[in-house]
Amino acid sequence: VAPGVITFLSDYGLADESVGVCHGVIARRCPQARVIDISHAVPRQDVRAGALMLRDALPYMPAGVHLAVVDPGVGTPRRAVALAVGEPERVLVGPDNGLLWPAAERLGGARAAVDIGRSRERLEPVSATFHGRDIFAPVAAALADGANLSDVGEQLDVATLVRLAPTRASVRDGVVHARVARLDGFGNVALDAVRDDLYAAGLRVGETVSVASAGTTRRGLYAGAFADVAAGELVLIVDSAGAVALAVNRGSAAAELDLHPGEPVAVEAVRATG
Amino acid sequence: VAPGVITFLSDYGLADESVGVCHGVIARRCPQARVIDISHAVPRQDVRAGALMLRDALPYMPAGVHLAVVDPGVGTPRRAVALAVGEPERVLVGPDNGLLWPAAERLGGARAAVDIGRSRERLEPVSATFHGRDIFAPVAAALADGANLSDVGEQLDVATLVRLAPTRASVRDGVVHARVARLDGFGNVALDAVRDDLYAAGLRVGETVSVASAGTTRRGLYAGAFADVAAGELVLIVDSAGAVALAVNRGSAAAELDLHPGEPVAVEAVRATG
Amino acid sequence: VAPGVITFLSDYGLADESVGVCHGVIARRCPQARVIDISHAVPRQDVRAGALMLRDALPYMPAGVHLAVVDPGVGTPRRAVALAVGEPERVLVGPDNGLLWPAAERLGGARAAVDIGRSRERLEPVSATFHGRDIFAPVAAALADGANLSDVGEQLDVATLVRLAPTRASVRDGVVHARVARLDGFGNVALDAVRDDLYAAGLRVGETVSVASAGTTRRGLYAGAFADVAAGELVLIVDSAGAVALAVNRGSAAAELDLHPGEPVAVEAVRATG
Repeated sequence: VAPGVITFLSDYGLADESVGVCHGVIARRCPQARVIDISHAVPRQDVRAGALMLRDALPYMPAGVHLAVVDPGVGTPRRAVALAVGEPERVLVGPDNGLLWPAAERLGGARAAVDIGRSRERLEPVSATFHGRDIFAPVAAALADGANLSDVGEQLDVATLVRLAPTRASVRDGVVHARVARLDGFGNVALDAVRDDLYAAGLRVGETVSVASAGTTRRGLYAGAFADVAAGELVLIVDSAGAVALAVNRGSAAAELDLHPGEPVAVEAVRATG
Repeated sequence: VAPGVITFLSDYGLADESVGVCHGVIARRCPQARVIDISHAVPRQDVRAGALMLRDALPYMPAGVHLAVVDPGVGTPRRAVALAVGEPERVLVGPDNGLLWPAAERLGGARAAVDIGRSRERLEPVSATFHGRDIFAPVAAALADGANLSDVGEQLDVATLVRLAPTRASVRDGVVHARVARLDGFGNVALDAVRDDLYAAGLRVGETVSVASAGTTRRGLYAGAFADVAAGELVLIVDSAGAVALAVNRGSAAAELDLHPGEPVAVEAVRATG
Repeated sequence: VAPGVITFLSDYGLADESVGVCHGVIARRCPQARVIDISHAVPRQDVRAGALMLRDALPYMPAGVHLAVVDPGVGTPRRAVALAVGEPERVLVGPDNGLLWPAAERLGGARAAVDIGRSRERLEPVSATFHGRDIFAPVAAALADGANLSDVGEQLDVATLVRLAPTRASVRDGVVHARVARLDGFGNVALDAVRDDLYAAGLRVGETVSVASAGTTRRGLYAGAFADVAAGELVLIVDSAGAVALAVNRGSAAAELDLHPGEPVAVEAVRATG
């Protein structure tokens, strides 16, 4: 592992000292480690949202130890793991509940894994409720300090890791059948579709589109930038992560269309009939 | 003091630049200092909540300067202080309003103290409203840069420091009479009781308990982990700080039981009569 | 530029990974850079609020690269710029929409500028929506790594930079006619007036003042500190940035007086008639 960098993603929020305590534990075990907080605002216990955020963020992070904790099963027998992936000098640390899987796939796939649930790096006594502090942070720090996977846990078969497969949009009869993948802090709604799906449905930049979800159907513009529509209008763009996204210029598409992760959204062109 | 590490806790929140400005002031005075943010989400001006958070977090922090600011009396004659404690290489910096007291007790007790209200490290002119920037941060930075207590203030008698004594639960006739000590960001409610109090009341893991507060009495399970109960159910656990805590699996015990710091809560076993 | 320090202000918030991704991009380009987050809580797309926060915070920051992103025009032809200012070893990086202007004025004025919209430091492909990641962060990192302005963009005429002039209170007939300049995280309301304006209107510390805004007129005390009035009472003080500010002790003046940036507020003494 490239010495010294630990990235950290969680659903701990910033309303208490959980994130700070993990930083402290890391600094005690590996004083030279530099910690980059990706985000601690994953929706609480939403493993899928955390997995997508981690997958999308890691390509922009330096090589190092990638610590991630969204862990509704803390205190149950779910495994705690550290993974080596195809890209060199990168190791992922977190619960074995699918959280790490899409990121590992993006980084070349899981190559080796260890079970760190009984790691010698654990803080004793291990609590039933805060494995970020007691297991994940100290193991991440040990790896950043130069430890090998085999130093921090028991080898396990990567084929037994819990997998999480993101959904993918389909295109039929000129309609993109997508699902909501992620919401960002501005209320922009990323779908599980990419630019090629729009192309396959015959949609081109500059066209008016119809966006249908559970309760509403609304028109918007397939555009190149938020500011291509007036304030308050709906726009369909390819976002900064390469996903097709719904946005309301200077507003919140999530709020206005009442969209949540997993919900179906159908997108098609609006064309004159006759 | 161990050079270079400053931990920082406050009630400044992250809605404006107050925390960032303190980081800047520290970086100007001691460029090599590393700052670890414990939390800035102490409830506004709640000295007791800040004191408990600081006390619980510091054992996980590396030795260094421990800066803490929850300061409803800023601009009044309350003293500003720096304290050496029993554990070597640790110094606490903050207002003399009890905020530092429980943490100092946990770290071996206050051994020496200085009044930093007129420290030569102050930023002039000192404002009436932002001593974090003008007094506490620059003094913390000077200490992290190697200054001694006597370099940054006037010696004072530790017996004159403002004390803050956390409440402690009592057990009578099989009932634990506790008070709410802290709420965390998930709505979990820590009481001022520990595992031994439950034991003294005859409670054992796996038993159903009755939890009575001002307006409600509710049943829950004394369990080892949140996930030992179904979503939405009340659980009594020993939390990651060693405190007895009330939680609702995937919910907020604070919201559902309408509990706030200081409120009384009675816990006892539910047993068949006859 | 002084090597190594980058300060970072934005309206990205902390509800998603945008800030973390910019930190990652910086760490990849300039691993030795230290990033100080000023705040990411500028009200969304409020260039004026961001400009004032940046202007007020930078004097407390070490010399270095000052990255700022509040960018409602992202994806439109607005320019992206880097500026050298009168104070040595400081460079500002951000959109050319006025955001940087008041800070540049405070730091000695813009001395030289380059258009970084097509910088060789950009991350390709440049998205239409996230220039913080694709342009501003990598250019800031290159500058922190020792690059010159001419290395990261095309020279432009500083006379063509977009300017933003903060409003300034006026005093007529013993009344200070001000506007709301900024709100902080505690609900304190900074006006575009300074101590000398109060003096010119004949106001002295200790006097009762009348504060009139759109819907309400309320009495308060012109005092030296928040705590000079009882909880819940209105106080007029000179705040930590040197601005005249309205505060409610242990409350929110912004909420209680329903004040927002730009709104007019008139302040005058309350004196016995006759």
